[in-house]
Amino acid sequence: MGKEKGDGKGNFQLKVPKGTKDWEGKDMIIRDKIFSSITKVFKRHGAVTIDTPVFELKEILSGKYGEDSKLIYDLADQGGELCSLRYDLTVPFARWLAMNSSVQNIKRYHIAKVYRRDQPAMTKGRMREFYQCDFDIAGTYDPMLPDAEILRITCEIFHELGWDGKFTIKINHRKILDGIFEVCGVPTDKMRTISSAVDKLDKSPWEEVRREMTEEKGLEADVADRIGEYVVLKGSKELLQKLQADERLNANASAKQGLEDMALLFTYLESFSVLKNLSFDMSLARGLDYYTGVIYEVVTEGSAPPTSSDQKPEKTASKPRKPADGEEDRSNDPSVGVGSVAAGGRYDNLVSMFSGKQQIPCVGISFGVDRIFSITKQRLAADASSAPIRTNEVDVFVMAFGGKGFDGLLPQRMEVARRLWDAGVKAEFSWKVKPKLPQQFKAAEVNGVPFAVILGEEELASGKCKFKEMGLPEGHAEKDGVLIEMADLEREVKTRIESAGQTADATNRVQDMSLAQ
Amino acid sequence: MGKEKGDGKGNFQLKVPKGTKDWEGKDMIIRDKIFSSITKVFKRHGAVTIDTPVFELKEILSGKYGEDSKLIYDLADQGGELCSLRYDLTVPFARWLAMNSSVQNIKRYHIAKVYRRDQPAMTKGRMREFYQCDFDIAGTYDPMLPDAEILRITCEIFHELGWDGKFTIKINHRKILDGIFEVCGVPTDKMRTISSAVDKLDKSPWEEVRREMTEEKGLEADVADRIGEYVVLKGSKELLQKLQADERLNANASAKQGLEDMALLFTYLESFSVLKNLSFDMSLARGLDYYTGVIYEVVTEGSAPPTSSDQKPEKTASKPRKPADGEEDRSNDPSVGVGSVAAGGRYDNLVSMFSGKQQIPCVGISFGVDRIFSITKQRLAADASSAPIRTNEVDVFVMAFGGKGFDGLLPQRMEVARRLWDAGVKAEFSWKVKPKLPQQFKAAEVNGVPFAVILGEEELASGKCKFKEMGLPEGHAEKDGVLIEMADLEREVKTRIESAGQTADATNRVQDMSLAQ
Repeated sequence: MGKEKGDGKGNFQLKVPKGTKDWEGKDMIIRDKIFSSITKVFKRHGAVTIDTPVFELKEILSGKYGEDSKLIYDLADQGGELCSLRYDLTVPFARWLAMNSSVQNIKRYHIAKVYRRDQPAMTKGRMREFYQCDFDIAGTYDPMLPDAEILRITCEIFHELGWDGKFTIKINHRKILDGIFEVCGVPTDKMRTISSAVDKLDKSPWEEVRREMTEEKGLEADVADRIGEYVVLKGSKELLQKLQADERLNANASAKQGLEDMALLFTYLESFSVLKNLSFDMSLARGLDYYTGVIYEVVTEGSAPPTSSDQKPEKTASKPRKPADGEEDRSNDPSVGVGSVAAGGRYDNLVSMFSGKQQIPCVGISFGVDRIFSITKQRLAADASSAPIRTNEVDVFVMAFGGKGFDGLLPQRMEVARRLWDAGVKAEFSWKVKPKLPQQFKAAEVNGVPFAVILGEEELASGKCKFKEMGLPEGHAEKDGVLIEMADLEREVKTRIESAGQTADATNRVQDMSLAQ
Repeated sequence: MGKEKGDGKGNFQLKVPKGTKDWEGKDMIIRDKIFSSITKVFKRHGAVTIDTPVFELKEILSGKYGEDSKLIYDLADQGGELCSLRYDLTVPFARWLAMNSSVQNIKRYHIAKVYRRDQPAMTKGRMREFYQCDFDIAGTYDPMLPDAEILRITCEIFHELGWDGKFTIKINHRKILDGIFEVCGVPTDKMRTISSAVDKLDKSPWEEVRREMTEEKGLEADVADRIGEYVVLKGSKELLQKLQADERLNANASAKQGLEDMALLFTYLESFSVLKNLSFDMSLARGLDYYTGVIYEVVTEGSAPPTSSDQKPEKTASKPRKPADGEEDRSNDPSVGVGSVAAGGRYDNLVSMFSGKQQIPCVGISFGVDRIFSITKQRLAADASSAPIRTNEVDVFVMAFGGKGFDGLLPQRMEVARRLWDAGVKAEFSWKVKPKLPQQFKAAEVNGVPFAVILGEEELASGKCKFKEMGLPEGHAEKDGVLIEMADLEREVKTRIESAGQTADATNRVQDMSLAQ
């Protein structure tokens, strides 16, 4: 944290709770830029936003997260209802849909904090309080069309963030996986637990996953080996064709349906120019139980352990393989392994868990904003050419100077500031009655304020003041500023700010801050 | 709530926790407009934002809220630190300042939810989870300058919201109040409790407050009557002059200091054109203990009980007055009495409660966004001329039509949508393989989408498609749309949207939605 400090008073620790942080300064600017990039894409696709309470009735959350339920934060029982902090944004959305039965379809996004009593790993962006940014499409449509649009939106978002060429969408289908498990001979009651084991392939080598399947979960060794032959596979359309040619799989109803879905999806993704970012990856299983169709996960440079390409199962592997030198150490390297930066899938049955009356099919994705933030910040730090980030947006600092007997011109500075504010100009002045000129310049420079309006008694007497662009080089004709008419103050200032091409308009400034490398 | 519904499954209630709500649809748009109006003003004055965790260590909050501490939500003790949900944004800000001793001055704003286990009154905008929007200035400056800027910012915000002429800033000074209590003979140990009683004058008549002072709090009757002579007073500069001429008050050090502060503040507020919105009101006391200087509260039409002008003390009142007919009923009228819409003051000692090492003077204001929202919504509903509010921002609906054997042109619709998205245009198309034309028009109309791109096989064969502005009157030359070149699609669409003067740019659309009457 670097922020825990001894107490100044009393004997309590002056800190934020474990796994939480204060957002401030340049981090806030980077974070808001990420939020606005993402929101812009959602709105381009017609999304609306809803905002649910930070806590839900405890029973709304129970039975939704399997083993992870132990990570839910409960509120104390202070009389009244028992409540828990939301664990994600998906269950509250499903609860909202169930409560609002007049809504039969919606594209909604929601950017908000969620809460998990997990072991924090701050440097990897794993916190107890962290932001999620969810986009979901609810409603009955023709197959795979909303699914395709979600993946298109995902590509647009990482494009907006400047990650072109730096991210991969891993995709799979629950029905294909289930079909593979059936074909390989996994008993029905072991399907989900074996799926969970497969899901660990992005972090553990096949040997370990195989051992978990056979030793911990009692799967027959030859069944595990048959699974191993499938989950090693990854590719694109050619893999789909290979699987469609697999007779065993096609004889299985679930796999067949999944493969048909994927074939249709690939056609749509081609229209949407998304295929180039896709990896059809049979080792992707996703932990959550509620997925019923396509599942996907976005990884980027540094978001997966560096050994991930080495840890695929060897076809004949049947004995534990020792981790190669350095593997264990690297997993603690804060620069790697922040996990996926977005993930989601289709979940057609979640809403009916709340309301048996209605069944609303849904498909969605959740962006791990804190992880995206961590990676963005590292990339910006590594890029010496990136422009410095200002934390406020003031355009004009109103100053005054004078010789002996100078009274500070406070009423005049206030009057000028008021006129500029009335005209919508972002302006500050020193909150001192008699500030020294160097102090005023320093205050402007600290915040990178680009312009100054400088008041002097002589100039004011002749109805003028000085307008100065800060940081002009020595020898520049306007280095010392130019005289402008006080009567024309607002128009002069606005025109000059614009013509200097340095308007500090919030949106522009933030959008100009490139997050790309 | 109107949202509590029977359970569809299991036997739990499908609802949100008491005193909380889901934000959705047009409410979200109005709320975001309020947030963006407020944020725009803060940024105009050079403010930055910080974001603190939703919960704090329990001990950070304890001892800060007096009697109201019982309203704090605690998290359950699940092992580890004891935490509570934040009760306001001021204490977390003071904690942040104490932790970050390198920050000696800052103008920060923070818009976020806070939590109070109060009895909810939803129609009056009183919730258990609600938004606060705080602006505070921390740092040592020349007297009353930051205080004046806070009040200027307050006026600019209500101006942005379209409330000109509809709000009043009530202002007072803790040191003047303390001086009055001393002069009137209130014992030192009764100062704060008598101040709390005075604070109730906006809700209760003087007789009741007097009874509380004398019967419940043991104040001598003549002391209470002397207080009553002062707290009836309200006005502007002339009241300040009257009090400055009061010899008893000027002999009191505290009152003298407070009156000097107010005189200086009035000078500054004149420069800032704020005086017209001000009411110097001696009955304003503010409940919280931590204020040390100026205090203020913003009220608007309908934000105070309608009897407030009647309930000022009569000079000789000494016996209980019966409430006039209707008074009790009106207090339950949901259209009145939502309380103040913003409030704050100077608190110079709060930061040192966390860190004895440093003392950072602060002055701030908190805007009750939910109350502002409730009033805005009522005013919009009452104003038949206000434009309908769209909930999404899509500009173009991509459609297709055809005769017998029409295949839906799905790949073509997807291609067009992709091209528009790539060009930054907000666009949708129907997620059906073969949608009927009326269905497509209906989908566009439901969301108020202003334009359509319509694909037909014949037009496509000649490299063209149709661009149509929705809702043109019968007889208009372009009622049926105009043909445009597919090769020129993006440029044509963008130009035509702009020239129709109906660009659905998020900012413009929201800013165009006038919240004023």
